[in-house]
Amino acid sequence: AAASVGILDVDLCGPSIPRMLRVCRPEVHQCEAGWVPVYTDQQQNLALMSIGFLLEDPDEAVVWRGPKKTALIGQFVRDVAWGELDILLVDTPPGTSDEHLAVVENLRKHKIDGAVLVTTPQAVSTGDVRREITFCKKTGVQILGLIENMSGFVCPHCSECSNIFSKGGGEELAKLTGSEFLGSVPLDPLLTHSLEEGSNFLQAFPESATFSAINNIAQKLLLHMKDG
Amino acid sequence: AAASVGILDVDLCGPSIPRMLRVCRPEVHQCEAGWVPVYTDQQQNLALMSIGFLLEDPDEAVVWRGPKKTALIGQFVRDVAWGELDILLVDTPPGTSDEHLAVVENLRKHKIDGAVLVTTPQAVSTGDVRREITFCKKTGVQILGLIENMSGFVCPHCSECSNIFSKGGGEELAKLTGSEFLGSVPLDPLLTHSLEEGSNFLQAFPESATFSAINNIAQKLLLHMKDG
Repeated sequence: AAASVGILDVDLCGPSIPRMLRVCRPEVHQCEAGWVPVYTDQQQNLALMSIGFLLEDPDEAVVWRGPKKTALIGQFVRDVAWGELDILLVDTPPGTSDEHLAVVENLRKHKIDGAVLVTTPQAVSTGDVRREITFCKKTGVQILGLIENMSGFVCPHCSECSNIFSKGGGEELAKLTGSEFLGSVPLDPLLTHSLEEGSNFLQAFPESATFSAINNIAQKLLLHMKDG
Repeated sequence: AAASVGILDVDLCGPSIPRMLRVCRPEVHQCEAGWVPVYTDQQQNLALMSIGFLLEDPDEAVVWRGPKKTALIGQFVRDVAWGELDILLVDTPPGTSDEHLAVVENLRKHKIDGAVLVTTPQAVSTGDVRREITFCKKTGVQILGLIENMSGFVCPHCSECSNIFSKGGGEELAKLTGSEFLGSVPLDPLLTHSLEEGSNFLQAFPESATFSAINNIAQKLLLHMKDG
C-alpha cells in the first residue's frame, strides 16, 4: 500500500503548498478529533494543512506576531485529525525563528526524524543555511541532508548550461559541516510552470533530468527513514 | 554633493547586506550618540547597520523570538548614530510579521516615504506580495512601487531569452492593485557574481542591460522622493 503522508505548511506569511498542490480555498471541516486535513486524492494518502486554507481572503495579510504564530503551529500539530501517518513533512519558511522553535517544541514528543535543509548555490544563501545548521545542533534535531536548489540552467534553445546563481555552494557546505549532500535540483521553467498550475510534474515529464534529480533525492531520504 | 544614504538590514535571520557590500565582520564602535554605523567609503556617504555586524560568529543562529527582534529593531532605529541622512533604506525579510511591524512603528515619527515591494514573476511569489500590499494599506504605508526581480534570462551562449520563473507577474500585480510598476530586473550571472564578491557592478558593467534596468528603477524612485 502507498504510504500515508501529511504535509504541514507553517510558512504563515507565505503559504505556497495550497497553490503548488492545486487545493486553493477548500473548506476545512471540524470533526470530533479536530480540524480535518485537506486530501488531494480519493485514497486519502496525502493530507494537507496550511494557513492558506483558513484565510477567508487569499490576500489577507497575516500580521501576527511571534506568540500568535507559535500558538497556531501548536494547534496545527495537536488539533488536526491527521490520522495514522507514515511521514509528516513540515514546510517551514527560511530562517531560525518563532516558526522553527514552535515546530521543534510541538513535535519533540513525536520524535523528529530530522531536518532537510535547502539552499541555493550562492554564499549569501549558504550563509543562512549555516545558521540553520547551528539551530538544528542547538535544538537537537538531526540533519538528514542538504539539497542545492536552483542549481544551473540548461538553455532549451542551445543546451548550454549557465550557473546563474553560482555553483556548488550546497555540496561545499555539506562537506564543511559534515552533512550528507542529497543532490541538486536545476532551474527548470517546466517545473516552475507545473508548480504555478498545480499540475503533476511527474506525470508530465517523467523522463526529464529535473524529475530524475528530484526522484534521486526522495529515494535517498526514504532510505534514511527506513534506517532511522 | 552626493546624498547621504543609510541602509538598515533588518533581516535578522538572513542578513545579506554585509556580504553584498563587502563589509563582513567590521567592528561596530560606540560613541556618545550610540552605535556608529559602518561606512563603505571615505566620504561617509553610505552608512550601514546590520545584525551581521553584531554577531561574534557568522554561523551563529539568531533564534530570537518576535519580542526580542522587535526590541533590536527599535535599537537600530533609535540607538544608531545615523547622523543627517537624506535617505534611509530599510531591507526587510519577506512577509508581514514582527520585523515589518517593528520598522513601521519605530519609523512612524520620522515619516515613512513608502515601501518598495519586490516580487518574482510567479503567482506563488506575487501572492505573498499581495499580502504585503494589504499590510501596507492596513498600516498606512504608501506604496512607492513594485519591482519584478528574476525576470527572464538571456542565455550568454545563444542570446535567447528564457522566462525561467514565468513572466509579467509583477506588472500584472501592479495593475491589479493600482500600484506603479517600477521595472524588471533580469536574472544575470554577472550580477550574482558581483553580489557574491561584494564588487561594484556599476563600475564593472556600466553598459549592461541589467545595470540599465536597475538604474531606471533607481531614477524613478529618486523622482518619487523629490516629489514627496
